[in-house]
Amino acid sequence: MSANRQIQIVELPKGKLAPQHFRLAEGSMPVPKEGELLLKTRLISLDAANRAWMQGATYRAAIEAGQVMAGGALAEVVETKAPGFAPGDLVFADTGWQEFASVPARAAMKVERREPLSHLLSVYGIAGLTAYFGLLNIGQPKAGETIVVSAAAGSVGALVGQIAKIKGCRVVGIAGGAKKCAWLTKELGFDAAIDYKAGPIGPALRDAASKGIDVYFDNVGGEILEACLFAMNLHGRIACCGAVSQYDGGSLGQGGIRGVPGLIVVKRLTMKGFIVLDYYKEREAALRDLEGWVASGKLKVPEDIIDGIENTPAALIGLLAGDNFGKRMVRVG
Amino acid sequence: MSANRQIQIVELPKGKLAPQHFRLAEGSMPVPKEGELLLKTRLISLDAANRAWMQGATYRAAIEAGQVMAGGALAEVVETKAPGFAPGDLVFADTGWQEFASVPARAAMKVERREPLSHLLSVYGIAGLTAYFGLLNIGQPKAGETIVVSAAAGSVGALVGQIAKIKGCRVVGIAGGAKKCAWLTKELGFDAAIDYKAGPIGPALRDAASKGIDVYFDNVGGEILEACLFAMNLHGRIACCGAVSQYDGGSLGQGGIRGVPGLIVVKRLTMKGFIVLDYYKEREAALRDLEGWVASGKLKVPEDIIDGIENTPAALIGLLAGDNFGKRMVRVG
Repeated sequence: MSANRQIQIVELPKGKLAPQHFRLAEGSMPVPKEGELLLKTRLISLDAANRAWMQGATYRAAIEAGQVMAGGALAEVVETKAPGFAPGDLVFADTGWQEFASVPARAAMKVERREPLSHLLSVYGIAGLTAYFGLLNIGQPKAGETIVVSAAAGSVGALVGQIAKIKGCRVVGIAGGAKKCAWLTKELGFDAAIDYKAGPIGPALRDAASKGIDVYFDNVGGEILEACLFAMNLHGRIACCGAVSQYDGGSLGQGGIRGVPGLIVVKRLTMKGFIVLDYYKEREAALRDLEGWVASGKLKVPEDIIDGIENTPAALIGLLAGDNFGKRMVRVG
Repeated sequence: MSANRQIQIVELPKGKLAPQHFRLAEGSMPVPKEGELLLKTRLISLDAANRAWMQGATYRAAIEAGQVMAGGALAEVVETKAPGFAPGDLVFADTGWQEFASVPARAAMKVERREPLSHLLSVYGIAGLTAYFGLLNIGQPKAGETIVVSAAAGSVGALVGQIAKIKGCRVVGIAGGAKKCAWLTKELGFDAAIDYKAGPIGPALRDAASKGIDVYFDNVGGEILEACLFAMNLHGRIACCGAVSQYDGGSLGQGGIRGVPGLIVVKRLTMKGFIVLDYYKEREAALRDLEGWVASGKLKVPEDIIDGIENTPAALIGLLAGDNFGKRMVRVG
């Protein structure tokens, strides 16, 4: 148990992320200091944000070359040098992409064990809470309204659309490829799906959201955000959840959106950015709702689980290319 | 009293608005039909929105060539064929740029007489209520926060900055020219003013709003909005009130803003468009606040009054060029 397989960053990507930016290495077994926990990584969460961190400081410090790749994971406490934790406890922490990590106890969030464990990273994790709060608190959808969500086959989008259906809305998903679009309408109950790779998005939106858009849940930014902006109804709401299209190869400040602020004024739109931590206090109530919907079968939980830590770089590169159906994670042990 | 001097549109502008787009003419005296009021125009309100209406439908129908130029005014009821109005009543209505107009009574908003009458178009009119609701309801400024307002020497901006001072904020105004900037700090009590014509706005903002911007009241869009977006603090709020820079010669959808949605997500910003009608129900309480501040001398009411209906086109062209200090209007009779 002395080896600690880990993925290190060889070089920060300047453009598109590629396998040669990473290497698999064996680190030493970390030894927890006072106030720290020794964690065994169980499931690594893959997120577009991983890529953003390689871009410079966002809401966490930037990642540097030579380090273990940063990343959140569901992990089990092996040894504790901090009060309030016991071996066997499950936590969510930034372990990085490695089998074992020592992390300060104050940076580990204890999570109640639920089965399957993977649900703690999807519907009961950041993806589920992001979908829940972004749609309901920012979007404030009313029954009968039209909701559009981009990256609709992704971890967050697939839940956003289903929650909007539960709330009685007409739901249009935007995703890449006919296979994903068919999956959204046939498996997840979306009313319509637009394949953004198949043609211009504007006409497709006018067709699929013929009464206009009341709530747009934006996971991508760029041209799709712009097209939705032009299709919004009066007093529409846009939940700004991410800007995937800008992460892989661009800076956060790049890309101009036409119609800002003209359309925001004329249509009296609200655009609001958020991260799930902003709603930490309301977390328990949200989890109760989500558990109820999962138990009743109203909310399906699409997960895309890959085995083996050595496959983590390819899993992230694939995620950025849009390969995943639902929440992608890597099972480590 | 048979002549009705009026300004007609000769041709809709394709680019910059110019005197030859208008002509002074004598129309016939309108005769009110059942349900209408005959109004005598007293003070014509000049607004960037006048120009926007020439651009196509916004929140009112587009204006067409050959018509009397549309525009809101404070007017007096001369004759009434509708219940609830009496000769001598003051109303705010879209009389157009003419001495007399017949308008449907349901499209006329009765206003309580206050002196000077011009205040009904500035601080107690749309400008004052826009400043009040945009700053307080959307911006939600807290004492000690930094507020930035663009078009700060305009009808709305000059009030926004003063109301923010009343609320205990640090206030930075952005305006064009050293004379306006000196006026903002010396006459209206702004903490700092940035002359956007004097140099790049980014460094000037970092200097004048060194702690970052908590609330940005946007009257202009374009590059100034973009610069402010980059200087916003976490959880900052942007009240989108207009997009003057896009009205004269561009379409509402033109101009790309970089940093959208990346900065909105990372900084968890709220951008919200509004028009004053959205807050109609809260109008009385707002007017009480505004009257109190005016009476106590805390809120100065800058007005820029031009005499004679024949000068209305030049007054609008000048407004779009930024000539006005405070609320510009034309006294008709």
